[in-house]
Amino acid sequence: MHLIVVARIIGILLMIFSLTMALPATLSFIFVDGVLNAFLTAFAVTLGCGVLLWLVSRGKQADLGIRDGFLVVSLFWTVLGLFGALPFYLAEHPGLSVSEAVFESISGLTTTGATVITGLDDLPISILFYRQFLQWLGGIGIIVIAVAILPILGIGGMQLYRAETPGPVKDNKLTPRITGTAKVLFLMYVSLTAVCTLAYWLAGMSFFDAICHAFSTIAIGGFSTHDASMGYFDSPLILLLCSAFMLFAGLSFSIHFQVWRNRTPGQYFRDSESKFYLGVILISAIIICAYLMIAEHHQPWEALYHGIFHTVSITTTAGFGADDFSSWPTFLPVALIMLSFIGGCAGSTGGGMKAVRVMLIGKQGLREMKQLLHPNAVIPLKVGQHRVEAKVVSAVWSFVAMYLISFVFITLIMMALGLDSLSAFSATAAAINNLGPGLGEVAANYHSVSAAGKWVLCYAMLLGRLEIFTLLVVMSPGFWRH
Amino acid sequence: MHLIVVARIIGILLMIFSLTMALPATLSFIFVDGVLNAFLTAFAVTLGCGVLLWLVSRGKQADLGIRDGFLVVSLFWTVLGLFGALPFYLAEHPGLSVSEAVFESISGLTTTGATVITGLDDLPISILFYRQFLQWLGGIGIIVIAVAILPILGIGGMQLYRAETPGPVKDNKLTPRITGTAKVLFLMYVSLTAVCTLAYWLAGMSFFDAICHAFSTIAIGGFSTHDASMGYFDSPLILLLCSAFMLFAGLSFSIHFQVWRNRTPGQYFRDSESKFYLGVILISAIIICAYLMIAEHHQPWEALYHGIFHTVSITTTAGFGADDFSSWPTFLPVALIMLSFIGGCAGSTGGGMKAVRVMLIGKQGLREMKQLLHPNAVIPLKVGQHRVEAKVVSAVWSFVAMYLISFVFITLIMMALGLDSLSAFSATAAAINNLGPGLGEVAANYHSVSAAGKWVLCYAMLLGRLEIFTLLVVMSPGFWRH
Ligand SMILES: [K+]
Ligand SMILES: [K+]
Repeated sequence: MHLIVVARIIGILLMIFSLTMALPATLSFIFVDGVLNAFLTAFAVTLGCGVLLWLVSRGKQADLGIRDGFLVVSLFWTVLGLFGALPFYLAEHPGLSVSEAVFESISGLTTTGATVITGLDDLPISILFYRQFLQWLGGIGIIVIAVAILPILGIGGMQLYRAETPGPVKDNKLTPRITGTAKVLFLMYVSLTAVCTLAYWLAGMSFFDAICHAFSTIAIGGFSTHDASMGYFDSPLILLLCSAFMLFAGLSFSIHFQVWRNRTPGQYFRDSESKFYLGVILISAIIICAYLMIAEHHQPWEALYHGIFHTVSITTTAGFGADDFSSWPTFLPVALIMLSFIGGCAGSTGGGMKAVRVMLIGKQGLREMKQLLHPNAVIPLKVGQHRVEAKVVSAVWSFVAMYLISFVFITLIMMALGLDSLSAFSATAAAINNLGPGLGEVAANYHSVSAAGKWVLCYAMLLGRLEIFTLLVVMSPGFWRH
Repeated sequence: MHLIVVARIIGILLMIFSLTMALPATLSFIFVDGVLNAFLTAFAVTLGCGVLLWLVSRGKQADLGIRDGFLVVSLFWTVLGLFGALPFYLAEHPGLSVSEAVFESISGLTTTGATVITGLDDLPISILFYRQFLQWLGGIGIIVIAVAILPILGIGGMQLYRAETPGPVKDNKLTPRITGTAKVLFLMYVSLTAVCTLAYWLAGMSFFDAICHAFSTIAIGGFSTHDASMGYFDSPLILLLCSAFMLFAGLSFSIHFQVWRNRTPGQYFRDSESKFYLGVILISAIIICAYLMIAEHHQPWEALYHGIFHTVSITTTAGFGADDFSSWPTFLPVALIMLSFIGGCAGSTGGGMKAVRVMLIGKQGLREMKQLLHPNAVIPLKVGQHRVEAKVVSAVWSFVAMYLISFVFITLIMMALGLDSLSAFSATAAAINNLGPGLGEVAANYHSVSAAGKWVLCYAMLLGRLEIFTLLVVMSPGFWRH
């Protein structure tokens, strides 16, 4: 490993990241909301640490190996998560403890959107903006890492696409081509956010709310500037617009990239994962809407937009709320949380296990049943026209197993820390799937969870966001041995 | 398919099964407990239907194919489960409805041990005996099917053993060698039950209770003749004896068979699955005992035997209870129920996903982490000295995926039918893992579950007992198409 070069990269990342605090500081200066000092201090500390790391490691050059890649990706969210907590800790108004500040920051950066703050509406404007901006930044970080970096490390559902598109995929070095891809992804991300802002603004949000909610919508983050979340605007139009943008952001940016470059929107409906993702959400939305109408006696139009909004919000792992969710029978939210384990497409800002993996497991299960009836037949596993390599299938299975084992362990730890079973289940699912809100005592926010519980959930959020293996590999003794 | 030959086999099975009712009928005649007519009627109906099926299909001979195998195995538990419900439905005393009677019968035959009856202590002696006997019969049925038949169908963890021992495993016909193996297995099963009866009797149970509890211990069934289950006897010695026999019955009868034939008890500690199974239970028991002592302030000796008994009872999926379980903090029973997903060894009477499968998944996860660090290395997956075939690994993954997907679906259905989340989760886990008791409103018995809920749980019990795929394959359109 080249720890000194890793330190240099983290130094540079911290310097860039410090700008995240300069923007809200400007806002705080203009609107005089009383938290200017907090942002300036956080900015100075983050920039200072970044410069220090950069100076220490200056002049060192080396090709990064695969281990360095794992380390950089893991540190990206942990280190930035810790420094990102500074404004929350230093600002007088939300008045958060260390564990709360770190929880809020990691929840933002991982686009989880679980919050420990009550009274969002009364928060200083710069803090509100900072929270949303953290999510937006986390979102683009995920896309770049998932589309450009993780495939090189052999992690993430994107390797399935690689199997379909020939190219220089076997090299283990982080090559400069990442920069080129990253630029286009960033441009697309910014454009999408701009369109979403405009749409929200035209639909009736204030300009500030429109930007803030566009940030957390495109990032599939779920943070809001209001305690009532999307319910605050009391507008079916906004709920439906939000659903559309969440749905779109939950598609793979790798596909968006191809559509953008080749001007072929039909690609969305030719891609197996996109079809599966859209199909699952469509069927779920129909069932939820029908249930609301028939069993809960909602008005048809109300059942329609509430059903669609909540289905999309939870299954894409955005986690936005609207007012009446908690009054539904428990089985509906639990069913939706189960769907959040599927989550978005690989290479989107969505969380969960990713549609492509779940699709592959379903296909494999059906294949196995055919195989049982025809023991001597050779039945290939296909995605679209392409046969899936055994190596890829095995990686996907391992991912799912580790994901579920981690989920069970963390749920048990949360129960041991005092949460009731429904709260522990939903809090852990909401954290590892980067979903956000849970049920029971963590339905509105995570304020009541103990400090230890918050740290455990931070770990779960990172685990989910880092596609399990990135973090597990870095934490394994074998990683450090050589 | 040769439906007529399948009918003939089911006819013969029903004729044999009718004897199950003759025995309690005799008991009822001797002790005059008022349910003689119920047993005689059930006996006559079952025998009659068996003879009828046999007469209709007399003289038809054909080699059974793989589809017939799936059908016979699936019908074994469903048809016998339905006929087995007759005495419960007809007898005046427990006074069960159709759904309750079928639930009790299937719960017995699948060795689940979930009950709908309260006031066991006041039940007619013949009914009590019949319940225990159903479990014992189900137990030997499972062993014979798992060790001798399922491997031929390509289902069940036993194929892992087959991969290690060369032999005529590729033929798709149910060969006569099943009869030979079955005889030895039956002999071992009877001997083990006799030893267990003797041990319980010497430890202070009445002779009737000793036989009855030996039946449900060796079958890892969990039915008892008392509402207080094993707690009734108020004897640490009995709890520890019970633990030892459950632990032993949870080992594979395929290994018992080899030890019996070769006189090599050391084999238990050389077999990978047995080591994993014993290791998991040992570590769990230590954690539970320590927790009871430290966090719950139990006396050391009390913590020891309660901890061991409950750990073994739940992880082997026996499901016997002792009085203080419900007073423990929820996280302990939930943790134990999670362990029941591992269950016994393949080819034992235990339920769950089976130790060998979980072990394989753990190994595969670790292998994957090594692979990520060494992308170009070829790292084989081994069990003991033997490399596991890719085909076997893929079958195991599919099994686990289908198992968990079924679990999630059924849990959601149970919630939709009105159970709270903890009860729905635990009831479904207890059914599909063939464990028995749940938590919350199904902690003591399943009386309060709606009729629809009972049918769903019956399906879950069958699904678990038939190793998922047997039932899913028979229910798939592809099975009937050709
Ligand atoms: K989210
Ligand atoms: K049981």
